[in-house]
Amino acid sequence: MDLIFHTPLSPDAQRRHGLEVPQPLAMADRVRFSELDILHHVNNKAYLSWFETLRVAYYDRVFAPHFKGLCAPRNVLRNANVHYMKEMVLDEDYITTARVVSFRRTSYVMEQQIWSGDLRATMTGVMVLRTQDGKSGYPLPDSLRATLIEQDGAVAEG
Amino acid sequence: MDLIFHTPLSPDAQRRHGLEVPQPLAMADRVRFSELDILHHVNNKAYLSWFETLRVAYYDRVFAPHFKGLCAPRNVLRNANVHYMKEMVLDEDYITTARVVSFRRTSYVMEQQIWSGDLRATMTGVMVLRTQDGKSGYPLPDSLRATLIEQDGAVAEG
Amino acid sequence: MDLIFHTPLSPDAQRRHGLEVPQPLAMADRVRFSELDILHHVNNKAYLSWFETLRVAYYDRVFAPHFKGLCAPRNVLRNANVHYMKEMVLDEDYITTARVVSFRRTSYVMEQQIWSGDLRATMTGVMVLRTQDGKSGYPLPDSLRATLIEQDGAVAEG
Amino acid sequence: MDLIFHTPLSPDAQRRHGLEVPQPLAMADRVRFSELDILHHVNNKAYLSWFETLRVAYYDRVFAPHFKGLCAPRNVLRNANVHYMKEMVLDEDYITTARVVSFRRTSYVMEQQIWSGDLRATMTGVMVLRTQDGKSGYPLPDSLRATLIEQDGAVAEG
Repeated sequence: MDLIFHTPLSPDAQRRHGLEVPQPLAMADRVRFSELDILHHVNNKAYLSWFETLRVAYYDRVFAPHFKGLCAPRNVLRNANVHYMKEMVLDEDYITTARVVSFRRTSYVMEQQIWSGDLRATMTGVMVLRTQDGKSGYPLPDSLRATLIEQDGAVAEG
Repeated sequence: MDLIFHTPLSPDAQRRHGLEVPQPLAMADRVRFSELDILHHVNNKAYLSWFETLRVAYYDRVFAPHFKGLCAPRNVLRNANVHYMKEMVLDEDYITTARVVSFRRTSYVMEQQIWSGDLRATMTGVMVLRTQDGKSGYPLPDSLRATLIEQDGAVAEG
Repeated sequence: MDLIFHTPLSPDAQRRHGLEVPQPLAMADRVRFSELDILHHVNNKAYLSWFETLRVAYYDRVFAPHFKGLCAPRNVLRNANVHYMKEMVLDEDYITTARVVSFRRTSYVMEQQIWSGDLRATMTGVMVLRTQDGKSGYPLPDSLRATLIEQDGAVAEG
Repeated sequence: MDLIFHTPLSPDAQRRHGLEVPQPLAMADRVRFSELDILHHVNNKAYLSWFETLRVAYYDRVFAPHFKGLCAPRNVLRNANVHYMKEMVLDEDYITTARVVSFRRTSYVMEQQIWSGDLRATMTGVMVLRTQDGKSGYPLPDSLRATLIEQDGAVAEG
């Protein structure tokens, strides 16, 4: 099928490639040789890199515009809960997704998925915004909170 | 202090380097430049590699002897829950630990920690044993179950 | 411009994206966050991974068909000479290329390039084919030698 | 044998572990599971990481003291020529070395080796010092040139 790589996929394109519920951001890529381990399948660490790549793309698109002209926060992973459903092999195409499901004053929860026909892995990440010196929490701007509620259906929990 | 690398640390040595409760396996290593990201701290993926290194060392020491003469299972990570407490920087020495806290018929739960003076990260991993063709679960041998109970204080849950 | 990722680029598409001399195999990808180091540019090791990805794609397309029904060789990197021309940053699209420039009885020389508008890095790799036990050289089949001469303009040196 | 990790090895210790000619800096480490590829041997990229780790240790010890109080240069790899002699496997201990063999006004050539009983890989790296904005060369201070001649037997070529 006509999978377009490194480009946000429309809800229709996501459905065509098997995603049950289209996500706010979804982009495709392909398994590399260097991501395999001695079992000839994708090593568990590679998924973390795929999730990270999409988190950065999501941050640049959704978060960064709200910090224009400000000293931007550090965006740090505090907890990662990764579930591996089904192994992947060389040259498989896959789609990585991102959605913010909830947020508090200085933190948010992101849900991510890997699809390759069916669901291969999920990650729930607790992210915290910190000031550049790392010493204190950095509150999500109101405009960002409104965007997350509107675009991702995120829930304000604090 | 006299930290010995790549060698199982005695309970006393673990306590001397800050571990509150000595663990069944604990080995030390040092942060590398390649593990840093643009924030000049250790990237979250690097910890996964440290945990993996010690899981392999643990498997080779504790699990492998129970499969001698048998067709050994595949030892696969099903779920990883990683908590990041405090960032790490270049050249820091750290100690990685492993302990099996519970097991069922064909799976087990491993708790791992990273210490560098204080606790930096933890991981709870759900591991499953599968036959080499990946098609069915592979039961933990009775001798292994007994070892895990005796050496790690693991709880039999199934 | 309309860059298609993970798909062999035609000679015309290669020229449109700046390559001076179209190469036998050229595919595009994008820089990831995990490939950056503390200098905020792509770390030198990442290029090795990109070159490897394309070498594997090249091998599967050009070499593998000549070993059908045979016990395939191990394809091992003996020497890598990498030249870094100009640094790369996050989200840059790039094209990796591969061409066999010469071969001997059980080895060959591959030239690879990274382009992103202009030339960013090159690698000359000396590859050897070994039997699966690694103990002796594995001769390039005559049909493969003919293919390399015809498609890549490779020179037979032994 | 009594191999000490992550600590500069004396000339005697280097000889005891097989090095023919002791090098100015040599430190030991151990192969990790994550460095293996599907061929069950250390992937060629892992060596680049080992060489990098020791280059950073060398830079911090030998170069950095000469830039105290100054705006330090960027230390960039321009060319890497890596030769792979003999494969390595899981849990092997190895020693990485570094020596500056020559220098010019704003660049230097470093020779590095990997030993594990015998010689496994070498790298010749051409390194350049650049100003922090990356726009111009940064001359090696006279005190550093003298140190490289005296400690490494480096040759001044410009």
